[in-house]
Amino acid sequence: MEAVYQYIDENQQNFIQKLREAVAIPSVSSSVPHRPEVIRMGEWLIKELEALGATTKRIELGDHELEGQTIPLPPVVLARYGEDPKKKTLLVYGHYDVQPALKEDGWNTDPFELVHDDKDRLVGRGATDDKGPVLGWLLALEAFQKTNTDFPVNLLCCFEGMEESGSEGLDDVVIQQANEWFKDTDCVCISDNYWLGTTKPCLTYGLRGVSYFSLVVKGPAVDLHSGLFGGTVHEPMTDLVHLMGKLVNPQGEILVPGIMDQVAPLTEEESQTYDALDFDMNVLHDSLGNTNSIHDSAKKTLMHRWRYPSLSLHGIEGAFYSPGAKTVIPAKVTGKFSIRTVPDMEPEKVTELVVKYVKDEFAKLGSKNEIDVFCQHAGKSWVSSFNHWNFQAAIKAVKQVFQVEPDLTREGGSIPVTLTFEQALGKNVLLLPMGSNDDGAHSTNEKIDRRNFIEGIKLLSTYMYELSQTTEA
Amino acid sequence: MEAVYQYIDENQQNFIQKLREAVAIPSVSSSVPHRPEVIRMGEWLIKELEALGATTKRIELGDHELEGQTIPLPPVVLARYGEDPKKKTLLVYGHYDVQPALKEDGWNTDPFELVHDDKDRLVGRGATDDKGPVLGWLLALEAFQKTNTDFPVNLLCCFEGMEESGSEGLDDVVIQQANEWFKDTDCVCISDNYWLGTTKPCLTYGLRGVSYFSLVVKGPAVDLHSGLFGGTVHEPMTDLVHLMGKLVNPQGEILVPGIMDQVAPLTEEESQTYDALDFDMNVLHDSLGNTNSIHDSAKKTLMHRWRYPSLSLHGIEGAFYSPGAKTVIPAKVTGKFSIRTVPDMEPEKVTELVVKYVKDEFAKLGSKNEIDVFCQHAGKSWVSSFNHWNFQAAIKAVKQVFQVEPDLTREGGSIPVTLTFEQALGKNVLLLPMGSNDDGAHSTNEKIDRRNFIEGIKLLSTYMYELSQTTEA
Repeated sequence: MEAVYQYIDENQQNFIQKLREAVAIPSVSSSVPHRPEVIRMGEWLIKELEALGATTKRIELGDHELEGQTIPLPPVVLARYGEDPKKKTLLVYGHYDVQPALKEDGWNTDPFELVHDDKDRLVGRGATDDKGPVLGWLLALEAFQKTNTDFPVNLLCCFEGMEESGSEGLDDVVIQQANEWFKDTDCVCISDNYWLGTTKPCLTYGLRGVSYFSLVVKGPAVDLHSGLFGGTVHEPMTDLVHLMGKLVNPQGEILVPGIMDQVAPLTEEESQTYDALDFDMNVLHDSLGNTNSIHDSAKKTLMHRWRYPSLSLHGIEGAFYSPGAKTVIPAKVTGKFSIRTVPDMEPEKVTELVVKYVKDEFAKLGSKNEIDVFCQHAGKSWVSSFNHWNFQAAIKAVKQVFQVEPDLTREGGSIPVTLTFEQALGKNVLLLPMGSNDDGAHSTNEKIDRRNFIEGIKLLSTYMYELSQTTEA
Repeated sequence: MEAVYQYIDENQQNFIQKLREAVAIPSVSSSVPHRPEVIRMGEWLIKELEALGATTKRIELGDHELEGQTIPLPPVVLARYGEDPKKKTLLVYGHYDVQPALKEDGWNTDPFELVHDDKDRLVGRGATDDKGPVLGWLLALEAFQKTNTDFPVNLLCCFEGMEESGSEGLDDVVIQQANEWFKDTDCVCISDNYWLGTTKPCLTYGLRGVSYFSLVVKGPAVDLHSGLFGGTVHEPMTDLVHLMGKLVNPQGEILVPGIMDQVAPLTEEESQTYDALDFDMNVLHDSLGNTNSIHDSAKKTLMHRWRYPSLSLHGIEGAFYSPGAKTVIPAKVTGKFSIRTVPDMEPEKVTELVVKYVKDEFAKLGSKNEIDVFCQHAGKSWVSSFNHWNFQAAIKAVKQVFQVEPDLTREGGSIPVTLTFEQALGKNVLLLPMGSNDDGAHSTNEKIDRRNFIEGIKLLSTYMYELSQTTEA
């Protein structure tokens, strides 16, 4: 791999220039006027992939409605490089669309002009999310080719242009192509999240799921005036607030009986993965703007972010929400809350427990109002084994390139495409981020450090090499 | 008074025609294009008053902003008829503006064309609120004049054109004129509310006040994603919902200690006034569209509407309030609630008790968030003695005209002008409604029954006569 590494080091200015070209295409998927740019970005990728000798397939997703207009969706770009049955086939996913960005939002420089600044950062929209990592796969391929090093895997690519706008149409493509373009996939790698801190790479092996609930309390047929009716009717807001207060306490403990019983027990092996993590409570406190965290240690905090469920109360629909004062008794109010779920919680069981508990608690209130409580939508949690050869190859690659043991992380939120690939293909999925925690993915002055980008290309290269070295299937 | 009654009976078609003229002027105070009509309505009243020999004074209130335009406010119309120092001087208040009305809203007929229908109702916008009652005073004066009956009082009028839009400018006029136009006022009568039921007149001697509170919970500096932060931070919504749930229970009982201790005890005399009231629980249930009232009897229900405080939770500012799902942890949320207050509650004391209680309860939550709780605005309750000669004159008048004892009522809401007059003039204020409970004041197909209008004119006439018969000062 030394030749590959040397090529990457020597060509880093060219690689940065390639990233600059990609960033210069403002592929903002949430905006009607930018849609042609998103499509142009997809076409740019096809051209780059074909220049590297990959076979490509452009999958059209039809039209959709945006801001009242019917416009074409950007294509899903599929690619294949290599068809050697003796090699492992790796499917990589990434996205070529970006979040909106305007200089006026607070960018120090034009967001669509990549700037290599004096802190050795590559600043530009999409630099880390997700154009840097997507290019990483292509530039790794180039490095193998130009150094006449045998490319260690058959590479399949799935790059979409709607990730920042709900990945519209992607699930169907993954399911359709499971037995077509993706049929010989051995393992999957997604490089679209971030290191836990800023110094040490990580592998991500788990995501929480989410079950989102509506709790409706219906009282009078119409909103009432509190002067005329206050004190004489059962007010839906009163019932709702009492019920919402029974779901979770101010220490974040879920009060719905049975929920915590479903949480997978903590093993000693898992517990140890938390001990060396690159995470400082200051990172959390910086996000909060204060020190109001519930837990006093990084380990407890991360466990509660990753491996324990949480319940958040998001708001109330139907009540008075504006500034000022309004003396209304709302007739029908809907509380919104969600539970972040973890293994071994099953969404069906979670819904069953929540519905029963809320109904039981409502019965105790002695109100004549009516309630309805239901799960709006549920996404399952995901957890993979970091002992799988796909993860072990990545662990070896991190040690080789960065000379450290990677953090083994999970995330508190969901990345739905992870589950989609795992379920559609039945193969192990690895999240292998390139960017660092402080990249500001959806924020102003998004950047990827030059080190993360260049060493990241080496990491992806080495990961593919390590896949070829595994004896497991 | 027989001659007066006979004149009223014989001239009822003319009186209805006069009301038709008034209704035909669409004096909608909340709409920019209607503003000239509101002013025209004020001028029509001045003309009518002067035709009856009254002295008038048109008080301009300057301009205000409405729908982004600067337009003139309609004038306050003052009038005086009679200056006999041996007579009592009665100040009457009413308003000549109306609520908006469009045929398309569900009116069976043109809202600004008074229709005398086959149920003997006079249907039209403003018929009962408040053009009928305002005209009542003028038509009573006409009846005395045309029958050469000595007019029993000195009559002062204060008619405004912004009542349906917050009575802008009125308070200042009342305070300014307290020692000018209104200086010899002996008592005040306002005819701008409604009978409790549909068959029996009432006198209204009390109104609840309202203290409106904001309860702010501040946590992180910005809204957070529940995936990333759920389970690791003290969520402001959780704290707020717990605190709001401690204010009132689903049976409408206020849980703030000390509040109920301030409520004036129920006397036997007061309790008896509830026994003969013209109120059926079906009226409440019709308003609710169901039978979900807290109390099972009319007496308990009315006591809780009128003479006991209530606490309503109106909503939450800063949380998610739209349809759908959003996985936000709101950074700062403000709960809105109000307490309807009654004698002998003092707004300052109410605020003190609420603030202390909320802070004490928050301390128990063990949250690191910050709270602020304060009273946005407070209006005092009002209660008058129905033993005052002003009320006694009205009671006699009801018995004379309707042959029944009037209901002695209070209202659950506030009519701020009542307190303004009482406080500015230091005189007894009586609310003596003309319309019935089912008139639909702010609704479609607003009406006043012919009986209420015609007998109402007799009632106002007789009330003035009875004022002249009282020996009290």
